[in-house]
Amino acid sequence: MMRRIYFHHDSLRGKAKTYEWLKEEIDELGEALRENDKTALENEFADVLAWLASLANVVNVDLEKAALSKYGNKCPKCRKTRCECPLSK
Amino acid sequence: MMRRIYFHHDSLRGKAKTYEWLKEEIDELGEALRENDKTALENEFADVLAWLASLANVVNVDLEKAALSKYGNKCPKCRKTRCECPLSK
Repeated sequence: MMRRIYFHHDSLRGKAKTYEWLKEEIDELGEALRENDKTALENEFADVLAWLASLANVVNVDLEKAALSKYGNKCPKCRKTRCECPLSK
Repeated sequence: MMRRIYFHHDSLRGKAKTYEWLKEEIDELGEALRENDKTALENEFADVLAWLASLANVVNVDLEKAALSKYGNKCPKCRKTRCECPLSK
């Protein structure tokens, strides 16, 4: 979906600038987390996901496929469907 | 899916620490972008999405619903299915 809406713009902008926008959205998400406003939070989560998907499009990575291939219903470290890794991470 | 695998851990970790991990993953994604290694890139995109989903779970936001509600097949600013906003963003 993000490819259809934004790929034309994103490809012109390039990966470095798109990454910078993603980082700004991450900062805005951090602010929304501190403020604890549910609507603002939903907005910022949507923006981060949108920019992440845009960046993936620019570098030709299938975001959903990459995530499913690494995390397909289990933790890639302990291999459990409910992660049992030590809590440090 | 991320809720099933990680919610137990994530809820113990809390939102501030989960956000810090997300930021670290964003930095690692930045490194992978500079190195241009496709496998590393896919890995890092998967990690960022996983931590973003984890963080959304911790603060009880439905990530997919939030994104679809804001970006449901069109740019939220210009309302076009292929964004026609000026290129500054």
